[in-house]
Amino acid sequence: MRIQIEQNKLVKYVNIVQKGISSKTTLPILDGILLEANDGKLKLTGTDLEIGIESYIDANIYEEGSIVINSRLFGDIVRKLPSDLIEISTDENKMNISCRSSEFNLIGNSSVEYPELPTLIDQLTINVPKDLLKNTIRQTVFATTQDETRPILTGVLFEVNGNDASFVALDGYRLALKNIKVNSNENMKVVVPGRTLNELNKILEDEEDDVKIILTPGHIVFNLGDTVVFSRLLEGQFLNYKDIIRKEHKTKVKVNRKELQDSLERASLLAKEEKANLVKLNVIEDKIIIKSNSEIGNVNEQLPVEINGEDVKIAFNSKYIIDGIKAIDVEEVEMSFMGSLNPCIIKPLGEENYTYLVLPVRLAKDDY
Amino acid sequence: MRIQIEQNKLVKYVNIVQKGISSKTTLPILDGILLEANDGKLKLTGTDLEIGIESYIDANIYEEGSIVINSRLFGDIVRKLPSDLIEISTDENKMNISCRSSEFNLIGNSSVEYPELPTLIDQLTINVPKDLLKNTIRQTVFATTQDETRPILTGVLFEVNGNDASFVALDGYRLALKNIKVNSNENMKVVVPGRTLNELNKILEDEEDDVKIILTPGHIVFNLGDTVVFSRLLEGQFLNYKDIIRKEHKTKVKVNRKELQDSLERASLLAKEEKANLVKLNVIEDKIIIKSNSEIGNVNEQLPVEINGEDVKIAFNSKYIIDGIKAIDVEEVEMSFMGSLNPCIIKPLGEENYTYLVLPVRLAKDDY
Repeated sequence: MRIQIEQNKLVKYVNIVQKGISSKTTLPILDGILLEANDGKLKLTGTDLEIGIESYIDANIYEEGSIVINSRLFGDIVRKLPSDLIEISTDENKMNISCRSSEFNLIGNSSVEYPELPTLIDQLTINVPKDLLKNTIRQTVFATTQDETRPILTGVLFEVNGNDASFVALDGYRLALKNIKVNSNENMKVVVPGRTLNELNKILEDEEDDVKIILTPGHIVFNLGDTVVFSRLLEGQFLNYKDIIRKEHKTKVKVNRKELQDSLERASLLAKEEKANLVKLNVIEDKIIIKSNSEIGNVNEQLPVEINGEDVKIAFNSKYIIDGIKAIDVEEVEMSFMGSLNPCIIKPLGEENYTYLVLPVRLAKDDY
Repeated sequence: MRIQIEQNKLVKYVNIVQKGISSKTTLPILDGILLEANDGKLKLTGTDLEIGIESYIDANIYEEGSIVINSRLFGDIVRKLPSDLIEISTDENKMNISCRSSEFNLIGNSSVEYPELPTLIDQLTINVPKDLLKNTIRQTVFATTQDETRPILTGVLFEVNGNDASFVALDGYRLALKNIKVNSNENMKVVVPGRTLNELNKILEDEEDDVKIILTPGHIVFNLGDTVVFSRLLEGQFLNYKDIIRKEHKTKVKVNRKELQDSLERASLLAKEEKANLVKLNVIEDKIIIKSNSEIGNVNEQLPVEINGEDVKIAFNSKYIIDGIKAIDVEEVEMSFMGSLNPCIIKPLGEENYTYLVLPVRLAKDDY
């Protein structure tokens, strides 16, 4: 292989495919980036077998060919080269990189040893604008569990029924649900690993172009144009989340999102000192009183709010309630309660497409 | 004590005095910030007994008094409060912080348990512009050792002879020397802990006002105006560095600083793969050829330079040579050599006030 490529373009896409490479791989070849020069394009691939990322870059191809090269070192080198044309040539497993008066000779691996990414069969395609997908992932993926003993909950449920799509994540303490409209006639239900969506979100640009989402048995593919992200799907039955979301409420509260977040974050400073990470909410008359205490002291926050329904005293793990409020980007939120023992449901005021549900912590009566 | 103070002002100075507090202290009271309200000022103090930082802030003092309060928690709270007036009041060891509708009650400690910072006697004062001191510290402190078995070399020698002052740091592999002009009639020679200078540099603003440097037996004090930094001095004999700096050279090279740094940084990518971290320089005819190799490959960099004197082949630990070149901020540097076995001396071209000296690594003849 012998090619010429612009340094800044190469850096951009090396940064992208590196997100598919795990530093903890046990298969040495997967420390590498696969470079393939064909048809006027340089194709880069990085994978850890769970996720795979391919990018196609315009380059001058003088001689086609392929090689696998250590990802970290190759990335460090191209980032440090001057912003100019880089020439890359290979001779069997050897790679030569030259740019102005810099010249690197590296030993790589044959591309025949590199695992193949899945071939796409039985395609089912859905189109979603990039910015919408990016925001949807941001609003849900954080609610997945990190607990590997419940593998299915480390993923986000992606369900499509015609034009309606839902993304759902839950970890046993809270649930995040986002409904969006998509361009599709299909029905499907898959669970995408949280890690895939986190890496995808670092790559996704905040623009209106569509991402093409392709489903094949056992895999999902996000085609962003220059870059294609493959991921295996998680197997198993996702919880029937619809039963969890209560329709009736005894108390509804309208509150400024930013003020609520700030008050909870201040209260959590003391909550963090204790194991339970507890903040207590007293919804009474025309305000929410937020309290927290630890050995070192206590905090009392008051927020003016609009209340419909009965007063309620309820306690939460501060992290779980704050996470959901931070995921909402409108000015006011609506919190719905059904006594101290049922989940609190938080929605952006006047919008039905996002639901965050958080379980309370049960306290003895005098502890509220 | 009962005071009112602006949130943003309090945050600024809490951030400053926290730099004097160590997270590893074994004396629990030193986890705290000492607050003292007196004479229309709030005084904050943080110390780990090696370094102490005091700040004086304008505040409305309704009732004088003092308390010690957990630094991390107090800092987190004031940073999270709204940008408005904060009211702080104390009752024995209890502190109440209120701001708008937020209220914190914290348990602190009595200020009588807090250690006293040294009293200033036998004063000897030197004035140095803040920006000059900041740059001088930046250009020297990195060359101190981290090796606690050679405590005197963890500090920077600060020597004053009338108007001439020098800052010197060395660790056995390299030496950094900066000479500056100061406003003084005194002679003195002290060794300031590297940690003190690193923390001082985070506080020092890049402006022309003077820092007043005060020496008292065993201590040095940097008076920045609102903030005073105290530090104990290191005891022991500093190396006689003047003998180390060679006056004669067999080779002098004039080279673009940025290009040299970039080439060395690229070469170091392969050097880093090996233990010795070795870059080899071949100064020949009108260029420097920089080479490095590891199991995974090799690199060859060429730089056009202006050479006076004989050719030289020499090898360095890449980190040590790069550190010195990064400390220089002019466009061209002069490197002086005396064969493969003597130190290389690097200076900003045409300036005599900064000297960086780095020891070569001795190689077998065929290994250059």
